[in-house]
Amino acid sequence: MKFTCTKKDLLEALGVVSKAVAPVQADQMMLSMVYLYAHDTALEIHANNFELGIIDYIPATVDSPGKIALSGKYFQEVVRKLPDDIARISLDSESHLVTIKSGAANFTLLSSDAEKFPVVEKLEGELDFEIHNEIFIPLVRQTISACSTSDSRPVFTGGNFKINGRNVSLSATDTHQLAIKTAEIKDPADTQGEEKSIVIPAKTLLGVMKDCSVNGSLADIHIVSDYKQIGFEFDNIYVRSRLIEGKFPPLDNVIPREFTTEISVRKDYIMNAADRVALISRSDELRIVTLDFQPGELHISSNSKDIGFAEEVIPMKLEGNELKIAFDSRFLLNALKSVTGEFCRLSLSDPLKPMLVREKDDESLQYIITPVRNAE
Amino acid sequence: MKFTCTKKDLLEALGVVSKAVAPVQADQMMLSMVYLYAHDTALEIHANNFELGIIDYIPATVDSPGKIALSGKYFQEVVRKLPDDIARISLDSESHLVTIKSGAANFTLLSSDAEKFPVVEKLEGELDFEIHNEIFIPLVRQTISACSTSDSRPVFTGGNFKINGRNVSLSATDTHQLAIKTAEIKDPADTQGEEKSIVIPAKTLLGVMKDCSVNGSLADIHIVSDYKQIGFEFDNIYVRSRLIEGKFPPLDNVIPREFTTEISVRKDYIMNAADRVALISRSDELRIVTLDFQPGELHISSNSKDIGFAEEVIPMKLEGNELKIAFDSRFLLNALKSVTGEFCRLSLSDPLKPMLVREKDDESLQYIITPVRNAE
Repeated sequence: MKFTCTKKDLLEALGVVSKAVAPVQADQMMLSMVYLYAHDTALEIHANNFELGIIDYIPATVDSPGKIALSGKYFQEVVRKLPDDIARISLDSESHLVTIKSGAANFTLLSSDAEKFPVVEKLEGELDFEIHNEIFIPLVRQTISACSTSDSRPVFTGGNFKINGRNVSLSATDTHQLAIKTAEIKDPADTQGEEKSIVIPAKTLLGVMKDCSVNGSLADIHIVSDYKQIGFEFDNIYVRSRLIEGKFPPLDNVIPREFTTEISVRKDYIMNAADRVALISRSDELRIVTLDFQPGELHISSNSKDIGFAEEVIPMKLEGNELKIAFDSRFLLNALKSVTGEFCRLSLSDPLKPMLVREKDDESLQYIITPVRNAE
Repeated sequence: MKFTCTKKDLLEALGVVSKAVAPVQADQMMLSMVYLYAHDTALEIHANNFELGIIDYIPATVDSPGKIALSGKYFQEVVRKLPDDIARISLDSESHLVTIKSGAANFTLLSSDAEKFPVVEKLEGELDFEIHNEIFIPLVRQTISACSTSDSRPVFTGGNFKINGRNVSLSATDTHQLAIKTAEIKDPADTQGEEKSIVIPAKTLLGVMKDCSVNGSLADIHIVSDYKQIGFEFDNIYVRSRLIEGKFPPLDNVIPREFTTEISVRKDYIMNAADRVALISRSDELRIVTLDFQPGELHISSNSKDIGFAEEVIPMKLEGNELKIAFDSRFLLNALKSVTGEFCRLSLSDPLKPMLVREKDDESLQYIITPVRNAE
């Protein structure tokens, strides 16, 4: 096996597949490897930790086809440091030594038996549709911060993706915050008139979002699922992931519909003010920020008996009643960061009921955060 | 007390003094505070953890003079987030609350009794001289990496500064590596014809080097020592530090003087090659890199039975005998990084004796590294 490719292509591909490279563990050595398969005019690079499997394809000049498996961590570090733009890689099939030449540098790495590597096979399944990355990226970006990071309820560590014909949605919640984003895809999926629902791990969603955002490329993502696993194919990348088992609870009844207090406000005003005043309560367990909706003014404040007090006043037009409500500043900031427009709309009804955060003229994102009882 | 200053000045000064702010500890609260003293047209900011005390002076419009002490950590974080270029700071002397106003933001921080703060007093002492920062910075930068990071022999966690009239030197060693840099100052110090020797903590040297490098300013550093502590005064900054007790061993007899093998080589060639091949041995305890000096070629290599082998060949002119020697790559890279010129000179005599690393045409830096016995 012998091929030549550019350092740049190889390094980018190793960055993509590294998300599926497991840490080195003696008993499952293969999961910490990457698998290189050179054939025709391409190099396939696979990594697979069984939770996640990724293939990246890059152009290569293949003098002699073949397969190798070698340490993902070391191979990536070696490639990062190669002195020349070109890497020449070959396998001595008797000694199992892989030679990497680039400029004056000459690396020889031990390789493992490539036949034992669990190559990533493309998934087949009943659910099969295409979604443009301009639709997919906001679905993930605007909801992912509501996912739980605790393993106590595994279903909440993922995003609940639903599809019915053209209509798609992604929801996430950790019970304190809830985000729902809806969108339409161009070609309807064949869902037999039913809504199909799966829970995709947050890590998988973030990884695919990151890789399909690169270089501002515009591409369709081809998604296939058998309801146990999911495959994403876009550009020169294939990602296969397990899905999270378990049922995502229905969330429609959690969304508040009736409000007594509403404001529209420049998002950066309230976000910067909340970020600043939260400094004061940051070391408390509940990092409480209080919003006091008064006629013509929103007062944002925070206090800690050990540190002090902070307040900012933002001019705004109040629709409805005065109201004072307190939130964990992390959830308030997550909600505000998820809003993409210049203005956001805050809708409330009671100091003990959730607040709905939306973009001013866009109903596609609904971010709901639960208040805390403020001791004040 | 009431004054106005710019956010930029205040933030820079807090960055400087923060090195002397201790972490919050209930029993020594004052050491985690900063002390602000507004008077005339300036604000003095002090921090003091007794190992290190720093004062920074910035311009201020003082409406009413006075002193306050408040949490260094929180005050710095609050200032970093102020929305406007100007900060207006005042103390309510009855409530002891400090108010910081900037744009629409309004912070109120608790303050402590400023009279209890251990203000930094300027040191007086017998040793008293000036050194230009263009002399001081290379003294520190080219030797500091040889300081020990282990507390087992405290004297090696500092740099040994010596002065005799115009002649100054800074030495550092952790017993595996040794760096000595010599220089001359413009106006001779009154050392009564004797060599004076002190050991300055590496942290202090690094801090002063950093602060006197800012904005490429050219300034004399005024140094005073009573042989127990040392004071540095430059620009608008005063730094007072304890010295390390104990005697630095004589190092002159450690410096090799006779060589059988010498080369001059482009520093970046050998540094990049050593950095690359060291990847292979990095996870071993002794990160061994082998240098094989052959006629016309320097072979730099590294190997690990679990990972593989790396080699690079650098063309060079060998003066003297062939020789093969092995080093911990960290010490080799430290020595090479300390050389500032384009070319470095390596001088050796035996695979078991130290190598001397110098700049090609500059004897002022001598960096000596001890080889390891290579198992090969």
